[in-house]
Formats: sequence, structure tokens, C-alpha cells
Amino acid sequence: MTVGIVGLGLIGGSIGLALRDPSRTIVGCDPSDEAQRLAKSRFCVDDILPLDQVVQSDIVFVAAPPSSVRKVLDEVFAHRRPDNVVTDVTSIKADVVEWAEENKAHDFVPGHPMAGHEKSSAAYASAWMFRNARWILTPVAKTKKSAVKTVESIVKAMGAVPVRVSPEQHDRQVAVLSHLPHVVAAMLVNIADGLERTDVSGGSWKDLTRVGGVDPDLWTQILAGNRRELAKVLADAEADFATVRQALERDDATAVRDYLERARTAKRKQEA
Amino acid sequence: MTVGIVGLGLIGGSIGLALRDPSRTIVGCDPSDEAQRLAKSRFCVDDILPLDQVVQSDIVFVAAPPSSVRKVLDEVFAHRRPDNVVTDVTSIKADVVEWAEENKAHDFVPGHPMAGHEKSSAAYASAWMFRNARWILTPVAKTKKSAVKTVESIVKAMGAVPVRVSPEQHDRQVAVLSHLPHVVAAMLVNIADGLERTDVSGGSWKDLTRVGGVDPDLWTQILAGNRRELAKVLADAEADFATVRQALERDDATAVRDYLERARTAKRKQEA
Repeated sequence: MTVGIVGLGLIGGSIGLALRDPSRTIVGCDPSDEAQRLAKSRFCVDDILPLDQVVQSDIVFVAAPPSSVRKVLDEVFAHRRPDNVVTDVTSIKADVVEWAEENKAHDFVPGHPMAGHEKSSAAYASAWMFRNARWILTPVAKTKKSAVKTVESIVKAMGAVPVRVSPEQHDRQVAVLSHLPHVVAAMLVNIADGLERTDVSGGSWKDLTRVGGVDPDLWTQILAGNRRELAKVLADAEADFATVRQALERDDATAVRDYLERARTAKRKQEA
Repeated sequence: MTVGIVGLGLIGGSIGLALRDPSRTIVGCDPSDEAQRLAKSRFCVDDILPLDQVVQSDIVFVAAPPSSVRKVLDEVFAHRRPDNVVTDVTSIKADVVEWAEENKAHDFVPGHPMAGHEKSSAAYASAWMFRNARWILTPVAKTKKSAVKTVESIVKAMGAVPVRVSPEQHDRQVAVLSHLPHVVAAMLVNIADGLERTDVSGGSWKDLTRVGGVDPDLWTQILAGNRRELAKVLADAEADFATVRQALERDDATAVRDYLERARTAKRKQEA
């Protein structure tokens, strides 16, 4: 089996490492020579090839930044082998689903692995990146069933758990579960910037700010790409903070406790 | 040397374990029989004794919940050995510093270890809890220098790093570095409560919500005890969210990027 990876950053590189097996030939390309060199030297790919050759593979992963994914998909579909399967890893699905419908790309399965971390580039790629992670697929009515099956099977080969969700639900879920946490982490480090010392912080601070310094270029694309859902979720977050703040201002410990109790119940449900 | 621990929860229990050494006798007490039994069975203390005997130790740690710490300090000072040293671990310092001034308790050194985690009770106590953690001390002008030195030396014996900060600065710092993160984590799990599924979350969600289900009773006391500072900090957080939300609403990617860039710079400074 041949696997093509278009875009050799943290996720593209990790896909290559996770699929490394004598039964597969993995080829890839990236607009950056440095990214290509790095991915090759870390054995993320067997070979670097031009895009029009990479897209002849049995399955093609498009791991491009959100702002260029439509352009890259255009290129991939202009040159690809007509009987192969193409999938992507973009963290917002509204845009690529729209692209697939406009272009009648029924062999294209929109996807999003719920994995990654605060460092970018294939230098931090890992074969274990997707182990036990959910890998969301958002096929639409016209997506070929066989294409979805192919992607599900290769996703499982990486140790991930494929999950089918509608594109709309996906974008709402990632607004809450991924985009909001990243804004929160950035907010925390920005607010702490005025403090005389921050070295006295404990474990909760370390955990909550781990993703507080992520790549501004990539994350602006991600947040802006999901701006409608994320703006709604941020308004909810502002309202929740105001509830707690007002309870504190009027010294209403019962209301503070109610909020924390509700969170404890919600957390138990989420962990169940 | 004898060490007395009044209050055998997560922190009190961990102090006992961290100080376990043939050169020290560690005794403790707790209003809960179950807590006493647990601390003894986990070897957090050598013996359980009544409070009036526990406070005859060379150094006495008061590890009581914030809402009862003043009352417990009254009791400790009513019975203690006049030449020993007393310290506490309460996470807000304004109150106990006021108590110390009112009671001319110059042998009392207000303290706060920046450690702990989301589970309570001595069942989760650990000898390593304070290893490399900052242990803030907020002595005032009248606190005896020798008492501060004694506490600093025993804090170091637990592997922690003693740091002197004014009580006012301490309360502002923990509002940002500890209390805000806990409200944030509760907010995240509460907002996610409306989602159809949360099992698709990734590593950032897990980190940011670890402390989202903390004990509502203890944390209501902590948050309410620091309500003035925390309300100010929450207002700042609301303003920051509004900035990002409004940028998203007017599709202003530059403003979103500026916010993230500022966070990256702040994070680097905080890690330096």
C-alpha cells in the first residue's frame, strides 16, 4: 500500500511515523524545503516527491494549514489518481465540507484527529501521537461509503479510534473542547504578565497554561476559521465568569458553591 | 525534634510524610476520626494525640480549612508551648495575617505551599508533594526573625523552596495563578455539559479541566476568602474574552493574532 502525505508538519510527520511498516511505502511533500528535509531525516517519509506524484498514492492525507487547505485540495484533485481516497486533518470542517460539495469530491473524507500538542513541525512528530485519540470523520450524504471505510481502517492502524460526527456538531464540539481552551490558556498567561512573580505557581497553573504560547499564525487560522461557533462559546464563557464574579462581589458563598458543585457533577459525567 | 500537625487532610498528611525521618517525632490531630485513622494508617503521623498535646511540639503546622483557620489558631495559641513556632498553610493570607496582628502572635509565620492537587484527604497524601514547589511565607514586621528561619529550614527539609512575599502580593498572585485557573476549569466543564459528546477531546482539554471537579466546599472557602482580588481578576478575564470575541465577530484576524502573539511572548518570559 502507498500512503501520500501533503504537508509535513507536526501532524503530517506523525502520520508518517504512525504508519511506518514494511507493508507501506510512505511519500510526502511540503512547500518548505526545511520541512521536507526534517521529515525525511526523522524517517516520517520514505521519500520526498513532487505533489503530483505524491497524490498517486492509494490514500492521500492533506495536512495543510487551515488557510490554505482549499487551495491544496484543488491541486490534489487536479492531479490525483482517480480511484484513490483523499482525507484531511483540518481542525474546522465547515470549509472543507463546503469545498467537497462544490467540487463533487465524493472520494474525499473530511477528518480531524483529536491530537497534537503545543510544539509545531515534524521535529516533534511522534509515532504515538494518535494512540487512543479520537479521530473524527465528517462524511456527508454523498461521500462514498468505501472511501470512509478505507480511512477508518488506516486511522485504526495508527492506534486511533475513528468517530463519525456531522460537520456542524464537530465544529461546535471543537469550539468548546479545543478552541476555547486555547483562548483560555492565552488569557491566563496574558493576565499573569502584570504580576511581579509567577514562579510561585503550582501544578494547576502549569497544566492550564501549557498551550498558552502556541504558534500565533496557525492558531489565528484555526480560531478565525471557526469564528461563528467560537464567538458564541466565548460569550457563554464571559457570562459564566460574570456569574461567579457577581456572586463574589455580593459575598454570596452559596452561589459560588452551586457553580463549583455543578462543575463537579459535569466533570464526573464527562469522565464516566 | 517534634512536629505537630493540626488538620490531617491532603496537605497535613503530606507534611507528615515529607518530614518522616528517624530524627523527628510527628504527631497530629483532626476533628474527623476517619481522617485521623487514615493519616495514622498511611504513616503520615507517628501518633494521634489531643490538640493540646499536639501543640507542645517544637513546630506546629496548622492545616485547617480556610473558614475555620482563625478558630483553630485561637485554640492552638490557647494551649501551645510558649517557645515553639506555629505556621499555617492557608491559601489566602489577608485573614490570618490580620489574626496574627490582633493576637500579637509574633511566633506565628503565615505560609502557603504552592502544591496540592484535585483530590482531597490524606488518602492522596504524598511524601513528594512539596518537592521543588515554592512555599510562600508572608511574615510581617513583627514576626520573629528566628521563627521565620525555623519555618524556612523545615520547609527546605520537605524539598520545597521557601519564598518571602508580602501578604497583599501573595493574595493577588494566587488570585491569578491558582484561583482563576480553578474557576476557568470549572467554567470549561460547565460549558461542555451541553455538548452531545465530550469523549472526542484531546490533550489540551484534559489538562485544562483536570481541576474542574475540585471539592466545592473547600474551594468555595478559598475563592470566597480571596473574593476582592479574585473579582478584579475575573473582570480582567471577561474583558480579555470580549476582546477576542469582538475580533472574531468582525473577522479581524490581525487582532486575534496580536492577542496570541502577546500570549506567546508572555509565556516565554514566564518560563525564562
